[in-house]
Amino acid sequence: MPASIPPARLPASVHVIGAGLIGTSIAMVLARAGVRVTLADGSPTGAALAADLSGGVVAEPGEVDLVVVATPPDVAGGVVAVALDRWPRAFVTDVASVKRAVRADVLAANPTAAERYVGGHPMSGRERSGAIAARIDLFEGRTWVITRAEETSDAGVGLVRGVAEAAGSVVRVLSPAEHDQAVAAVSHVPQVAASLVAARLADLTEESVALAGPGVRDVTRIAASDPRLWTQILTGNAPAVAGVLRELALDLGRVVDALDALTDPDALAPGARATIAGAIAAGNRGHDRLPGKHGAPQTAYRIVTVLIPDEPGQLGRLFQDVGDAGVNLEELNLEHGLGAPFGLLELSIVPEAETTLIAALTARGWRLHT
Amino acid sequence: MPASIPPARLPASVHVIGAGLIGTSIAMVLARAGVRVTLADGSPTGAALAADLSGGVVAEPGEVDLVVVATPPDVAGGVVAVALDRWPRAFVTDVASVKRAVRADVLAANPTAAERYVGGHPMSGRERSGAIAARIDLFEGRTWVITRAEETSDAGVGLVRGVAEAAGSVVRVLSPAEHDQAVAAVSHVPQVAASLVAARLADLTEESVALAGPGVRDVTRIAASDPRLWTQILTGNAPAVAGVLRELALDLGRVVDALDALTDPDALAPGARATIAGAIAAGNRGHDRLPGKHGAPQTAYRIVTVLIPDEPGQLGRLFQDVGDAGVNLEELNLEHGLGAPFGLLELSIVPEAETTLIAALTARGWRLHT
Repeated sequence: MPASIPPARLPASVHVIGAGLIGTSIAMVLARAGVRVTLADGSPTGAALAADLSGGVVAEPGEVDLVVVATPPDVAGGVVAVALDRWPRAFVTDVASVKRAVRADVLAANPTAAERYVGGHPMSGRERSGAIAARIDLFEGRTWVITRAEETSDAGVGLVRGVAEAAGSVVRVLSPAEHDQAVAAVSHVPQVAASLVAARLADLTEESVALAGPGVRDVTRIAASDPRLWTQILTGNAPAVAGVLRELALDLGRVVDALDALTDPDALAPGARATIAGAIAAGNRGHDRLPGKHGAPQTAYRIVTVLIPDEPGQLGRLFQDVGDAGVNLEELNLEHGLGAPFGLLELSIVPEAETTLIAALTARGWRLHT
Repeated sequence: MPASIPPARLPASVHVIGAGLIGTSIAMVLARAGVRVTLADGSPTGAALAADLSGGVVAEPGEVDLVVVATPPDVAGGVVAVALDRWPRAFVTDVASVKRAVRADVLAANPTAAERYVGGHPMSGRERSGAIAARIDLFEGRTWVITRAEETSDAGVGLVRGVAEAAGSVVRVLSPAEHDQAVAAVSHVPQVAASLVAARLADLTEESVALAGPGVRDVTRIAASDPRLWTQILTGNAPAVAGVLRELALDLGRVVDALDALTDPDALAPGARATIAGAIAAGNRGHDRLPGKHGAPQTAYRIVTVLIPDEPGQLGRLFQDVGDAGVNLEELNLEHGLGAPFGLLELSIVPEAETTLIAALTARGWRLHT
């Protein structure tokens, strides 16, 4: 797919509508790149703050190359349609995390202008909101999805790519339906599952919850997310999310039935153990699909676990030793037992580095679990 | 609860039945502590290897203080019952990750000896198996649950506590039912959920799976677990796991119904948005129950995110700077975007350290997202 992405072209002028976290951060990036940036927001104070922070100006331009609609997702489609009317020679993009619904609104309101609409989704993943939280490096190293439908203009895709690359993002191009289906499976359904698993912890006793280890922590980490934002996101992608959740619910029902059949320890329960083993094995296969760093499969890494005394400076000493060994770390995970005087740090490395790292750390007195 | 745990007492002699990963690691710990250790295993070669690795001897003792049954969970109850008969003055413990089923087997086979049975569950969480993977530090810093029923002898609890503390574990005492209910919610149900979410990734296109970010990675990390082991664990705790999964399935059904009601964007769908927001908010409350390091609530930490160039030595330099600032890290999380030339490292710290850390890292030229 990357081969077919039109070349990036930085717009000379951009109008940003919506001066929140994303809009203001985009304005910062563009102003730094020398683009003429104008800003608008429902709140004049908010627009003025965003202009101060970014170096743009609060104004409605007569002509502009690109309009960036950075409003909440539930109103993005309407704002895009109005902008297509108002600036008949401009391309218009948005930043909503759902793309079919926005496109449907645009097509319904202004079908002849839809070629000038280019859907966008910078996957920045920041918890805070508002212009004051904006950062020029918000998108660096993140994926910025551009959605291309049949009608989408190549020139428009090139302009949005120019913005995304100026922001330091990695561009991926998908159709709106592919995007929504993909984020349903890799983002929206995991969020729902994490929230539902976490909800089951709410009524546990202190003694019970104290048994929580790194597994449940990982599974429920994103359960801390904002309910208002996630209601908008899930609502905007309702059909795709419901479809994946329905398949998940079928699998879940089969596991529950199998466990019920096994609750009587003397029951033979034909097939029940195979159902459970099959569900875990299917999870193995899905897990293997997740790309590791730089696209390598996760299973390609070796893990070396190091005991870290719970004192300032110990991690510094360790990573100094890792750096001296010339070994690059792919992933890191620090785990603390309740009441334990040290943590277990998991270092993921490429297999070729394993012998070197173990020898270097052992020689410097580190205690390893390999 | 800790106040009521009988004092730890190290047994003078221990017989370990089952020379796999757990049994051999326990034998190592006890031999180091000066305990007379004998070993038995269904495989004579396996027992001999475990003896070589641990410093124990392959023998059946005439008398012994404590028998440790370290067999797979599905046969643990039967082996415990036989051991209670064979050594009428010994206490017997086991290491199975489910506790009601083992106790039921013991009570059924040998009710008058049940006071000498002390359930145990060292929560070591190692993926490999077999004596050759055994480690003397396998249990260090981990939780070792002792299950105490009405009939359980205090003297027996004290002996198992002595073993657990010799292994460097933190002891927690629960009833068998409390243990099984707790691990259903904090371990078994998260495993099932992670596997079911991961299974939905198996059929995605490459372009779709490339959008996977840190959220889905966290949720599905444990989906790489062994199907055979997990079938035994889930089967052994079937009633408790099925109970929690059934509640989760009800919540899931409500979310799917709400999303279906919202699929028509013009539908009013009364209550549907509230259902979704309620599910995410319930997850917030459950997530808040998870203890952080040293039992502090997770929300007590601040997160400082640092951009790390993808070169050897950079993490060493960073942690050196963190150590020089005198700041202790509570948690760590390293994240890489696909194709990104650097990673984002999240440092969790106590709030009082935030200003110091930000000032120190900024002064040394690090780029922060705060």
